[in-house]
Amino acid sequence: MAELPQRVRIREVGPRDGFQNEPETIDTFDKVRLIDQLGRSGLRRMEVTSFVRPDVIPQLHDAAAVLEAIEVPPEVSLSVLIPNERGLDRALEHRDRFHEVSVFLSASETHNRKNVNRSIAESLDGLRRVLDRAREAGLRCEGVIATSFGCPYEGRVPPERVAQIAAALRDAGAQEVGFGDTTGMANPRQVRELFPQWREALGASDDVELTAHFHNTRGQGLANVLAALDVGVDSFESSFGELGGCPVPAGATGNIATEDLVSMLEEMGIDTGVDLPALVVASGMVRDVLGRPLGSHVSTAGPVEWNPPAPPS
Amino acid sequence: MAELPQRVRIREVGPRDGFQNEPETIDTFDKVRLIDQLGRSGLRRMEVTSFVRPDVIPQLHDAAAVLEAIEVPPEVSLSVLIPNERGLDRALEHRDRFHEVSVFLSASETHNRKNVNRSIAESLDGLRRVLDRAREAGLRCEGVIATSFGCPYEGRVPPERVAQIAAALRDAGAQEVGFGDTTGMANPRQVRELFPQWREALGASDDVELTAHFHNTRGQGLANVLAALDVGVDSFESSFGELGGCPVPAGATGNIATEDLVSMLEEMGIDTGVDLPALVVASGMVRDVLGRPLGSHVSTAGPVEWNPPAPPS
Repeated sequence: MAELPQRVRIREVGPRDGFQNEPETIDTFDKVRLIDQLGRSGLRRMEVTSFVRPDVIPQLHDAAAVLEAIEVPPEVSLSVLIPNERGLDRALEHRDRFHEVSVFLSASETHNRKNVNRSIAESLDGLRRVLDRAREAGLRCEGVIATSFGCPYEGRVPPERVAQIAAALRDAGAQEVGFGDTTGMANPRQVRELFPQWREALGASDDVELTAHFHNTRGQGLANVLAALDVGVDSFESSFGELGGCPVPAGATGNIATEDLVSMLEEMGIDTGVDLPALVVASGMVRDVLGRPLGSHVSTAGPVEWNPPAPPS
Repeated sequence: MAELPQRVRIREVGPRDGFQNEPETIDTFDKVRLIDQLGRSGLRRMEVTSFVRPDVIPQLHDAAAVLEAIEVPPEVSLSVLIPNERGLDRALEHRDRFHEVSVFLSASETHNRKNVNRSIAESLDGLRRVLDRAREAGLRCEGVIATSFGCPYEGRVPPERVAQIAAALRDAGAQEVGFGDTTGMANPRQVRELFPQWREALGASDDVELTAHFHNTRGQGLANVLAALDVGVDSFESSFGELGGCPVPAGATGNIATEDLVSMLEEMGIDTGVDLPALVVASGMVRDVLGRPLGSHVSTAGPVEWNPPAPPS
């Protein structure tokens, strides 16, 4: 067994991905206090909103207000998801309030077309312009590749195609590439095979960070994290409360839960920098705001060190 | 990375462990049709009930009726949990209806005393008599060690103590030892360290089967399965629908879900013998019987090959 990483980087995506996927739009006030609590938990990366069209995604209508109102420690790197140049224009009006942008496309033509009504090539053309201008503005850039491990329409996606898209994103200026398991089709054996392939395709250089974005759709999210750690991946994206992701069909879960990820890693002696009790407080707050049970486990069971006494069984 | 096992053995424990932990007693008729459906899913091992005192655990009052009524294929090995000699006496009245017994104790003195009001030494004395008589009756015997990976009262349990108890169970006639993560304290690094230690302590011989019984209390159940596979463990216990286990505090989950386990293993190319759609049917049936959402994921998301189309995200 290879040595596991000693520390990992975690990007919290709940405030964008999670809030976007809730049927009811969360009050701006609640978003701000939730993000502020996450900022106090030791998380060092957070995707806080997206400048999408408010008539299409009303859940994020308040992107500007949220960006302006949140108060997080200066060491937290805030990112904003950018769908296109118009979104970038709006984001740049608040340039001093965030540090990174994320752009996305899918490795599956069918999924990309259904998602943004463009071919992969058309998406890449648009993202190149966004990334160019974002870098000019001094922003760090991440490109996320959805359906990297499989597509619900096309099945398994050729890993070479994913590698080509990753290289195109790097060439366009992305300093980080995220590999998304959009509908929870990844398995640990595949994860162990693909990340080394992708790292090699990117020249095995340290100038592009590889990030794993797993979903817990079939309960295997943290097993895929372990598999990724085993092949040297040390950057992950997750969502507090297990919010968001691609929760289909109804009742399914999406993103892996940040508190479950942190609990496992810290118990394994891998440093995340996160104060788990403070994170669990944030999850408890969002459960109250949403008024429904969460998909995450540690938000209910608590950290291991809390040792809830077990009844006889 | 070591070679993964090509096939694994799974014991379904939902009909005992799951049904016992439901607040409302499930109708005998429903138990029988659920077990019969599980028997049609290709599962080859199933713990179907326990002869405990009906005044203490009314949920399993109908152990005899269930054993007599179920109809499962002859290749399914049925086991019964035996708490003591009185329970064995009652079970032996239906000797031709099952093939194995399971007995249990805890590796933590505090947990064992709270669970069965005995010291570990007293438990072992009692289990020796049960195992002696069970083997005389031609039954295969499993001994399960609760809190093998940690105790909510005592914290980490010395692995040497767990190994000593495992050896004592083997010497008493157990052909299989199950290591239980009763309150979900195990992590993958620990799992990779402990199973090789325990196997060596048992003489590294093939005459005792080592079985992992993980809980998903903190969402890490399948990651622990992967860690166990990596060190050669190829026998697991799980529960359809993620029923049962040690679901504390309220709302917490216990056992890993059999359908999630099977989905991950089969996607990894590891043979389980299980027909996943038939198993998901059983989970859907128990969801209807209980009238509540299940903790398992594949029961909602479906097998990967069902490819539920994802909406744009």
